[in-house]
Amino acid sequence: MTTSSDLPQSAYQNLANIWTRAHHLGHLQAIASWDQAANMPPHGNEARAAAMAEMAVLLHGILTAPDLAAQHDAAEKESLSQQQRANLTEMKRQWVARTAIEPESVRRMQMATARCEHAWRTQRPANDWQGFLSNFKEVVSLSRLEAKALSQKLGVSPYEALMDQYEPGLTTATVDRVFNDVRTWLPGLIQQVVAQQAAQTVAIAQGPFPIPQQRDLCETIMRLLGFDFQAGRLDISTHPFCGGVPEDVRLTTRFNEQEFITSLYGTIHETGHARYEQGRPKDWLGQPASQARSMAIHESQSLFFEMQLGRHPGFLSQIAPLMKLQFGAHAAFEPENLAMLLTRVKPGFIRVDADEVTYPAHILLRYDIERQLIQGDIEAEDIPALWDSAMHSLLGVDTRGNFKDGPMQDVHWPMGLFGYFPCYSLGAMYAAQWFASMRATLPQLDSQIAAGDFQPIFDWLKTHIWQQASFWPTDTLAQMASGSSLNPAHFKNHLMQRYLRT
Amino acid sequence: MTTSSDLPQSAYQNLANIWTRAHHLGHLQAIASWDQAANMPPHGNEARAAAMAEMAVLLHGILTAPDLAAQHDAAEKESLSQQQRANLTEMKRQWVARTAIEPESVRRMQMATARCEHAWRTQRPANDWQGFLSNFKEVVSLSRLEAKALSQKLGVSPYEALMDQYEPGLTTATVDRVFNDVRTWLPGLIQQVVAQQAAQTVAIAQGPFPIPQQRDLCETIMRLLGFDFQAGRLDISTHPFCGGVPEDVRLTTRFNEQEFITSLYGTIHETGHARYEQGRPKDWLGQPASQARSMAIHESQSLFFEMQLGRHPGFLSQIAPLMKLQFGAHAAFEPENLAMLLTRVKPGFIRVDADEVTYPAHILLRYDIERQLIQGDIEAEDIPALWDSAMHSLLGVDTRGNFKDGPMQDVHWPMGLFGYFPCYSLGAMYAAQWFASMRATLPQLDSQIAAGDFQPIFDWLKTHIWQQASFWPTDTLAQMASGSSLNPAHFKNHLMQRYLRT
Repeated sequence: MTTSSDLPQSAYQNLANIWTRAHHLGHLQAIASWDQAANMPPHGNEARAAAMAEMAVLLHGILTAPDLAAQHDAAEKESLSQQQRANLTEMKRQWVARTAIEPESVRRMQMATARCEHAWRTQRPANDWQGFLSNFKEVVSLSRLEAKALSQKLGVSPYEALMDQYEPGLTTATVDRVFNDVRTWLPGLIQQVVAQQAAQTVAIAQGPFPIPQQRDLCETIMRLLGFDFQAGRLDISTHPFCGGVPEDVRLTTRFNEQEFITSLYGTIHETGHARYEQGRPKDWLGQPASQARSMAIHESQSLFFEMQLGRHPGFLSQIAPLMKLQFGAHAAFEPENLAMLLTRVKPGFIRVDADEVTYPAHILLRYDIERQLIQGDIEAEDIPALWDSAMHSLLGVDTRGNFKDGPMQDVHWPMGLFGYFPCYSLGAMYAAQWFASMRATLPQLDSQIAAGDFQPIFDWLKTHIWQQASFWPTDTLAQMASGSSLNPAHFKNHLMQRYLRT
Repeated sequence: MTTSSDLPQSAYQNLANIWTRAHHLGHLQAIASWDQAANMPPHGNEARAAAMAEMAVLLHGILTAPDLAAQHDAAEKESLSQQQRANLTEMKRQWVARTAIEPESVRRMQMATARCEHAWRTQRPANDWQGFLSNFKEVVSLSRLEAKALSQKLGVSPYEALMDQYEPGLTTATVDRVFNDVRTWLPGLIQQVVAQQAAQTVAIAQGPFPIPQQRDLCETIMRLLGFDFQAGRLDISTHPFCGGVPEDVRLTTRFNEQEFITSLYGTIHETGHARYEQGRPKDWLGQPASQARSMAIHESQSLFFEMQLGRHPGFLSQIAPLMKLQFGAHAAFEPENLAMLLTRVKPGFIRVDADEVTYPAHILLRYDIERQLIQGDIEAEDIPALWDSAMHSLLGVDTRGNFKDGPMQDVHWPMGLFGYFPCYSLGAMYAAQWFASMRATLPQLDSQIAAGDFQPIFDWLKTHIWQQASFWPTDTLAQMASGSSLNPAHFKNHLMQRYLRT
C-alpha cells in the first residue's frame, strides 16, 4: 500500500516549502530591520549592516535558485486549487523580477544608493545641489540600467518596469489616464478651497502635551481602530513606519511635546498599514500569494484610515473626548473645530507635510520628472528647472534656488526608488473608491461611524482587501471589491464634498 | 606574474569566511532572541519560534558541514600565525562537539526540554513534583544519551562531556579538588558569620522608588562601570540577561517599585558580562577564537563586578551619593550601612536570592546530584531526599516536601542544562583570584577605587581576560592572568576578610 508520505513530493509543495523557509528567515530580517530604526545604538550599525547584507544575499539565493524555473514548469502541470495556482503565479512573477537583475548590479546599486543617501543627509540641510548631483547621477545611471534589464524581461517600458516592483502590472497609460484627469481640476480646486478657508477661524491648543499622554492617546485610538496589541507594538523611530511581520507588527511614530496631531495622525496612517498586515490570510503566511497586493493597495489602507475614516466627522466626534481626557478641555478639541483643523488646505513646499488636497500636486510633479529621467529624456541637471516650473503652475509657490525643500526633500530619489511615487496618489484614490463602495452597500455607515461602530468598515476591508492578499491582480481585486477598475472620480467627489461644502 | 589574488584561497581563509558568515547570521538570531525576551507580544511567539528554529538548523548546517573536517586538516598544514592556529583549534573543538550529536537527537532533546520547561512553569508554583517527574525523566534520559555520545567523542566521562559545553576541558577531578576544599570550611563559616551579624542593626529605606529614577541610577552606574551606550542598551525583561552581539550588547533588568537594590545589583552583574563582550578583540569578531573563553570565565566577570568591585567599600562610597540624588537622603544610603546591607548572610532556599557566602552551598548540592544523575547512579525520583539532606547539612534549612523552592526552583534542569552549575562557583573563585592578582600588581588599587578611579581594573581585565578571548585554554588564561591555575584559597580569603572582620 502506498501512503501519501511515500509519494514523491510535488513540485508545488517543494516550492511552497522553499517560500516558507524564506518567510522564517525573513522574519528575523524584519525584526532586525525594525530594531535598527527603533533601538539600535549608533556603533551597532556596521555589524548590523553586514548581518543584513548576509541575509539579503542568502534570501536572494534561495528565491532565485536556477532550478526554480524547472520546478515552476513542473508545478504548472500538477493538479492545483485555484488559490495554489494564484500562488504559483506570484512565485513565478517574483522569480522573474528577482532574476532579471544580476547580483553584481544589485551590489553596485546598493553601494551607489548607500553613498548617495548618506551624503544627502548633510547635503540636504546645506542646500548643496551640486554636491548631491555628483552622487545622484550614478544612482540615475544604474537605475536606468536596472530599468532596462527589467523592461526586457517584463516586456514593458523601462519606467513601467520600475513601477512594477511596487505596483505589479501598472502602466503609464493607466497613470496618465488618472493623473491627466486630476490635472484638469486640481489647481482650480486648490484655489477655491484656499479662498473659502481664508474666512475660517480655527482654534489651536497650546502645548506642552506630555509624551506619555500622547502615547496613551495613540494606543487608545489604535485599539479603537482594531490594532491587535497581542500581535504588535507601538514604538518610536525618527521616520514612522509599519514593519515587523504579520504575526508581530511593529508600528512606529515620533512625538513632539509641542504638537500632538501630526504624531496621532501618523499613527492612524500606520495603523491602516498594520491592519492590512495583521489581516492577511493566516493559513497562507509564508507564501507569496499571502503578501499584501501592492504598494498602491497598501497606501489605500493607510490613507483610508488617515483620510477617509480619520477625518470623518463621526470619527472626530468619537476621538474628541479622548483628547480632552488626556489634555483637558479646550475649544480646539471640539469635533467641529477638529474637522476644520484637519482639513486646512495650504500649498507648501514639502510633500510629507501636505494636506489631502495639495498632496496629489506633489505626486504629479514627481511622476513627470522621474519618468522622463528614467527614459533618458532629461538629465539630473534638468530637474530643478522642471521642479520650479511645476510647483509654480500646480501650487503657485516659488521654489527657485531652494533645493533642500525642492528636489532634495525626499529620500526616494537618493535611494533609487524610482516608480514608487504614483502609489501614494493611486492609494488615495483607491481609498476614496473603497469608501464609496462601502457606502453603497452599507446605507447606515455614516451614522454607525458617528456612533463609534467601525466594525462594518473593518469587515468590509477584511473581506475585500486584507484576505484577498495577492490572490488576484490589482485590477481584478479592485473590480471584485468595488465593481470597477480604479476610477479617480471617487477621489474627486470626496474632495469636492469634504472641501467645498458650504 | 602571479599576484596573491590569483592564488587559490587557503583552507584556513575559507574556514574563516564560513565563520564570519555564521557570525553575521548569528547576529540576527541574537537580536531576535533579545527581542523575544524584551519586546515580543504574546501572539508573536509561534512565528518567532519557527523563525529561530529555521536559523538554528541553518547555522548548525553551516558549522557541521562534513567537508569542514578535510578543510581543518588542510589548514593544519598551512603556515599560520599563533593566533590563527589558536583559532583553528577552536574551530575544530566546536566542530567535534557539534557533530557528536545527531540532528535527530537535537530535535528530540529540544522537544522534550520545551515540553518539560513549559509544564514546569505551572508545576513549580503548584509544587507538583510528580507531574514534573513525568516530563523530567525523558529529559534526563535524553541528556544521558547526549552525554554518552559526547563523551565517546571527547574521551572524557559523560558528566564531564556536558560540563565541556560550558567550560571546555573542565574535569570532575578539578571540580572535586576545588569543591571538596570548600566543603571543609563553608558550613562553619556560614554559622560564624550569621552569629556575628545577629547583633548588627541595618537601616532599610522604604519605597516606592519610582522606576524612571531606578533606571536612571542603573544607567549612571553602568556608565561608571564603563558600559558603552554607543554600542549597547539597557531594557527590561522578566529574567535579566546580557544578550545581543559584541558590537551591540543588549542588557536587561527588571524593576520593582518597592525595592531597588536587587535590580541595581542585577544590572551591575550583567554589566560585567557586557564589558567582557564589548571588550572582545574587535579584529577577530566572527572567529571562534574571539568568543568569550567559557561560562566560568564569563561568570568571573559578572561576579567581579557584582561582588568584588560592587561591594567594595570604596565603590559603595562612590555610589551612595548617587542613590541619595535619586531617592533623597536616608540612613540606609550611608556607605557603611550599604556595606552591611549588601553583605547580610542568611541561609535560604533559593539559589538566585542567596548571598555571596551561602551561594556555593547551593552549587555543591546541585553538582553532587546532577553528576550522579547523569552517571546513572541515581534516578530523578531520588533527587528530593538527596536535596533535603544536603540543604540540612550545608545550610541547616528544612526543605522536605517543598519541591517548588527545592529541586524545582531552577530552569536549568527542565531545560536539560546539566553541567552548567559549577561555572557559577568557579566564576566566583576566579573573580577573587583576579582581584588578588590585581592587588599584587597595583598596590594603590583600593584607594583608587575609593577615589572613583576604576580604570586600572578595567585595564587589567581588558588586557588579561577580555582581549585574550579564546586564544588559550581556560587554565592557561588563568596562569597568564594571575600566575596560577584556579586556586580557591583566594575566594576563601576574600570571604574571611570581608565577612569575619571584627
